[in-house]
Amino acid sequence: MMRRSMTVVAVAAALSLPAMTTANPELMKLMDDPNNWAIFGGDYAGTRYSELDQINTGNVADLQPVWTFSTGVLRGHEGGPLVIGDTLYIHTPFPNNVFAIDLKDQSIIWRYAPQQDADETIPVMCCDTVNRGLGYGDGKIFLQQADTNLVALDAKTGKEIWKVKNGDPKKGETNTNAPLVVKDKVITGISGGEYGVKGFVAAYNIKDGKRAWKAFSVGPDKDTLIDPKKTTHLGKPVGADSSIKTWEGDQWHLGGGTTWGWYSYDPDLNLVYYGSGNPGTWNPVVRPGDNRWSMTIFARDLDTGMAKWVYQMTPHDEWDYDGVNEMILADIAVGGKQRKALVHFDRNGFGYTLDRETGELLVAQKYDPAVNWATKVDMKTGRPQVVDKFSTHKGGQDTNTKNICPAALGTKDQQPAAFSPKTKLFYVPTNHVCMDYEPFEVEYVAGQPYVGATLSMFPAGKVTGDGSTHLGNFIAWDASAGKIVWSLPERFSVWSGALATAGDVVFYGTLEGYLKAVDAKTGKELYRFKTPSGIIGNVNTWSYDGKQYVGVLSGIGGWAGIGMAAGLTGDTEGLGAVGAYKSLDKYTQLGGVLTVFALPD
Amino acid sequence: MMRRSMTVVAVAAALSLPAMTTANPELMKLMDDPNNWAIFGGDYAGTRYSELDQINTGNVADLQPVWTFSTGVLRGHEGGPLVIGDTLYIHTPFPNNVFAIDLKDQSIIWRYAPQQDADETIPVMCCDTVNRGLGYGDGKIFLQQADTNLVALDAKTGKEIWKVKNGDPKKGETNTNAPLVVKDKVITGISGGEYGVKGFVAAYNIKDGKRAWKAFSVGPDKDTLIDPKKTTHLGKPVGADSSIKTWEGDQWHLGGGTTWGWYSYDPDLNLVYYGSGNPGTWNPVVRPGDNRWSMTIFARDLDTGMAKWVYQMTPHDEWDYDGVNEMILADIAVGGKQRKALVHFDRNGFGYTLDRETGELLVAQKYDPAVNWATKVDMKTGRPQVVDKFSTHKGGQDTNTKNICPAALGTKDQQPAAFSPKTKLFYVPTNHVCMDYEPFEVEYVAGQPYVGATLSMFPAGKVTGDGSTHLGNFIAWDASAGKIVWSLPERFSVWSGALATAGDVVFYGTLEGYLKAVDAKTGKELYRFKTPSGIIGNVNTWSYDGKQYVGVLSGIGGWAGIGMAAGLTGDTEGLGAVGAYKSLDKYTQLGGVLTVFALPD
Repeated sequence: MMRRSMTVVAVAAALSLPAMTTANPELMKLMDDPNNWAIFGGDYAGTRYSELDQINTGNVADLQPVWTFSTGVLRGHEGGPLVIGDTLYIHTPFPNNVFAIDLKDQSIIWRYAPQQDADETIPVMCCDTVNRGLGYGDGKIFLQQADTNLVALDAKTGKEIWKVKNGDPKKGETNTNAPLVVKDKVITGISGGEYGVKGFVAAYNIKDGKRAWKAFSVGPDKDTLIDPKKTTHLGKPVGADSSIKTWEGDQWHLGGGTTWGWYSYDPDLNLVYYGSGNPGTWNPVVRPGDNRWSMTIFARDLDTGMAKWVYQMTPHDEWDYDGVNEMILADIAVGGKQRKALVHFDRNGFGYTLDRETGELLVAQKYDPAVNWATKVDMKTGRPQVVDKFSTHKGGQDTNTKNICPAALGTKDQQPAAFSPKTKLFYVPTNHVCMDYEPFEVEYVAGQPYVGATLSMFPAGKVTGDGSTHLGNFIAWDASAGKIVWSLPERFSVWSGALATAGDVVFYGTLEGYLKAVDAKTGKELYRFKTPSGIIGNVNTWSYDGKQYVGVLSGIGGWAGIGMAAGLTGDTEGLGAVGAYKSLDKYTQLGGVLTVFALPD
Repeated sequence: MMRRSMTVVAVAAALSLPAMTTANPELMKLMDDPNNWAIFGGDYAGTRYSELDQINTGNVADLQPVWTFSTGVLRGHEGGPLVIGDTLYIHTPFPNNVFAIDLKDQSIIWRYAPQQDADETIPVMCCDTVNRGLGYGDGKIFLQQADTNLVALDAKTGKEIWKVKNGDPKKGETNTNAPLVVKDKVITGISGGEYGVKGFVAAYNIKDGKRAWKAFSVGPDKDTLIDPKKTTHLGKPVGADSSIKTWEGDQWHLGGGTTWGWYSYDPDLNLVYYGSGNPGTWNPVVRPGDNRWSMTIFARDLDTGMAKWVYQMTPHDEWDYDGVNEMILADIAVGGKQRKALVHFDRNGFGYTLDRETGELLVAQKYDPAVNWATKVDMKTGRPQVVDKFSTHKGGQDTNTKNICPAALGTKDQQPAAFSPKTKLFYVPTNHVCMDYEPFEVEYVAGQPYVGATLSMFPAGKVTGDGSTHLGNFIAWDASAGKIVWSLPERFSVWSGALATAGDVVFYGTLEGYLKAVDAKTGKELYRFKTPSGIIGNVNTWSYDGKQYVGVLSGIGGWAGIGMAAGLTGDTEGLGAVGAYKSLDKYTQLGGVLTVFALPD
C-alpha cells in the first residue's frame, strides 16, 4: 500500500496543473491510486473493488468506527463519498448539499448548499429524494442536482464555476444519478420514468458546461444517435428508425427509457455503458410493440455519443423492470474463452454477461431462484420467454395479476454490485420480493404522475412465525457460468452498494443499518456494526496517512424505504413498496450519517 | 459489578408488582443498581456518578462505538437515555418522540409519537426545541412534551396511560425539562421566561395525573407555598408576602422565575431542590426591586410543596442569569465540618455550596476567572457585589453596556455537572463567553416575546490567529474550597452533561461532536471520538449482560447552537448566541444520534 505522503504530493501536483484539454490522465491517475476513491464505482469499470488489503479476513473482526459525520438531512442517502488525497467529498439527498471534509481533523473545508425549488422538484421525485453522488475531474467537483442543474464546483473552495440546466422539473424531469467524468466531458442522465419523461444521456464540456451531445433512448435515429447500419443489436445492424418502428403511432414521444442509473466507461474501446428505464406508462396494454430502446443496455462512443451497440433486455416491459442498473466491466473467461465482458444484474432478475466490445450475449441466468415472470432468455433472440400467467398485458387492464417475481423494484435496483478480480466473483445486493400488478388507463399531463398501474409488494421468502421477513439476499455470482456461488439471506432487501477488496473482505449494508463484512470466498460473516440508520448508501474504502478506512452513508429511504422517508402509509403513493417494508421502523429511523471505520492503531 | 442476569430478575419483579402507593422503593432500588441509569441525574442527588468501573483510566483508550441509533429528528438533542434493565428509553426534541430500545439487538420495542401543534409551540420556544429527557417510575415512562402535556406511558408497551396539560403555549408556556419521579408524584416545571411566563413547579399523582400541588416562584404566599414564619432565607424567616413586596405594584404578575432546569431530591429530608429563572423582561430598569423569588434556589417539601428555605442568588437580575441549573447533593466537608451540601453552578458565574438542610450559604466563588459583573458574594447577605460599569440597570435603557462576563447564557447553562465521591471533585462543563447588553422598553402581549434587551456574545478568551476560539472550559471544582482544581480549554462551550465514574474516568461531549474521556484526578485526555453531530446531550453509563456501556446523544442545537438548529443568521433572533458560535458549522452539522460505546470483547 502506498504511503499517504506520496499521494499528497501527487494530488497537489495534479490540482495545480494548468487547465488540461482532457481530464483523463489526471483522473485516471487518481483512480489508479487505491488510496483514493475518485469515482463512484471505484474505477471506470464500476468494479467497486479496491487493491487495499490492510483490512483483511484475518483482522476485519477488529474493525471499529473511528469517526462519524451527520449530513443534517433526513431522507434516503444513496451513493457514497469520493476521496481525493486528503479530502473527502460527501453529498446529501435533496437539497443536495455538498461537504468537503479534511481527513486530518474531519473539519468542514467548504459546504455547497444549492438553492432549489422544493415545491417544484420534490413532488416529481417518484422514489425518495435521493442523490447517488458526485463526480471529480479537472480540479472540479460535479454535482447533478435534483432540479436537473448540473454544477461544477472548485474542488478546493466549493465555489461554483459553471451550472447548466439538464432538464425541467415542470415536465417531471429530475436527476438522482451521479455524473460520470471522462476525458473533457461530464456525462449525465435524467430521471422521471413515472412522469412520462423521455430519457436521454447528455455530455457536457467540463470546462464550461457547454453541451457536446445528447442522445435519447427512444425516437428517430437523429435523436437516439443510432446509426442504422453501424449500430448493432446482438451483432446485427438495427436498421432505420429502429426505435419508433416498435411504437404505435407517435407514442414514442412518451417513450420513457430514462437514464437515472450508473455509468461505466472502457478507455480502450472509448465506450460509455448504461441502461435505459421503463417505457412510458406502466400500463403495457396501451403501448403495443417492443418499445425500443427502453430497457436497453447502450454502448456509446464517448466523443460523439453514437451508439455502437444496444441490447434490449425486456422488450415491451409489463412490470417496470428498468434496465438502469450498473454495468460492470470485467475481463473474465466465458466458455473457456477470455472476454472483455460486461456484467449486469437487471431488475428483471436475470444476470447478463455480454461481450462489451460487440454486444454479444454470452450468459443470461436468473440470479434469484424466485424469478418467475420468464422461464429463461432465448440466447439467439435475446428475448425473455414470458410466462403467460405473469404477463400483466395478457392479464389486461384493471385486472390484478398476482404473485409476479420479482416485484417492480426488481431482483436488484440501483444498489451496485462489486467484482473481485481475485475471486472472479460478483457480489450482488439483491431483493427477494414479489408483487401483484394491476394496469390502468392513465392520461399524460406534463409534470403529473404517469404511472398507470397499482401494485403491492410482498416477500418472496416466507414470513416466519415471529413475523420476521426474508426480503433480500446478498449473493456471490459466477458470471461466467451464470450461477449463484453462495447466498446470505437478509431480513430486508440489501439496498446498499457492495465493496470488494484485495483483503478478500466484501462489505455491504442492510436496511436495518448494519455494515457487514463477509469472507469473499465463503460469505462467512466476519464483522457487523449497527450504524445510526438503515443503509442504502454504498460502501467505499480509501487510505489516509497509511491507514485503510471503510466508509458508508446510512440514512434509510430510497424506494424500499419510501414509506419512512416520505411518511407514507399507503402502497399507492409508495409505488407498492410501503407494505413489504412496513416493519422497517421497528429497526431504524431516518437520519443521514457517514460512518468511517478502521482497525485499531 | 452485578451480573446482568440478576438485574433482569430484579426489574422483572419490580415491573410485575401490583400498583404501589408509592413509587419510591421500586425506583430507589432501580437507581441503586448501577447497571441501570434510571433517572436523568443518575440518582436523586443528581451526581451523574456511576459505581461502574469496568471502563477505567487504564483501558478507556480502547473504548469504541458498539452501536448507534439515529432519532430521525434534526434539532438540538439535550438530555440522555434512561436504561432500566434490558430496555433503553430515548427521547427526541420536538416532536418529542420516545423510543424503547431492546438492548439485546437494538430493535425498537415501541415508539411513542405525540401529536403536537408545531405552529403554536415552536415559535414560543426561545432557545431551540430541546427536551431534556424522560422520567421512570411505577412501570411508567413520563414524558413532558413541549406543548406542556405531561404524559404517562406504559413502559412495556408505550401505550398512553394518562395525559395532563401543565400549561398553555398560547401564553408562551412550553416545557423542555425532564420530569422528576418521587414517591407517588411526578414533578415538573415550566419554560417561557422570554414570554412573560410566571414560573411554577407542579406535582402530579403518578397513578392518574391528578395535580397534588402547584407552587409559583413569585406572587403571594398562598401561590408560592411559602410560610412567612417557617420558610427561611439564609436562616431567617422570609416574612409575609416576601415575593410581592420586592416588586413594584402588580409587576409580579409578569414576574418570571420559570423552572425549566433540573430537579434533585433528598429522601432523608424529603426535600425537592431546583432553581428559578429570570424575572420577567430582561430590561431591569422597568422592574425595580429584588424581584423575589426569581433567580432563587428552592427547597420544597415533596408531599406538600411548601418551601423550607429559599436563597436568591441574583437579586434584581440585570443579565438573564437564570438560576435553574442543577442542584447536586453531596455530603462533603466544608471548613473541616461534614455537611449535607448542595452544590450549584449558577449562570451568574458563581459556584455555590450550601447546607441543603438549612439553606445556609457556605461557599460562593467564581468558577471562571473571567466573571466580572460582581466582585464577590457577601457571605452574610448572600448578595453579589455588583460592579457598576457592568450594571445594565445603571447603564440604562437603550444604552449598550459592554464586555460583561459571563454572557446571558452564563458560565454554565443547563449542561449538568457531575460529582465523584471518590475524588470529591465536581466536573463542570462551562461557557467562557462575554456580552454587550442593551435593555429596551417592551410591552407584554400574551404569547409574544417579552425579552426587552438586545445582546451580542463573544469569546471571553482570545480569538487566536487562526480564527479558532476559546469559548469554554471543562473544569474540576473543589466545592469545599471554592476553587478550580484543573481546567481544560475548549474551542466551544461545553454544552454536554458530564459523567463521573468509579473507574476514575470523567466523560463529556463537545459542540464539535467529540465524546471525550479524561482522568478524574488530572484532567488528562484519555480518549476522544467524533460523534455524528455536536454534543449538547448528557453522557450516561449502564451495564448490560456484564458489560459497561457509555452512551451520549449528539445533535447540535440548544441556545449555543440555535443559529444552526433554527437556521438563524442574526443575533437578535438567537438571543445573542449566533455570532459567538458562528464557526460551529465548520465542524458539525445537524442530526440526532445516540452513540453507545464499550470496550472490545
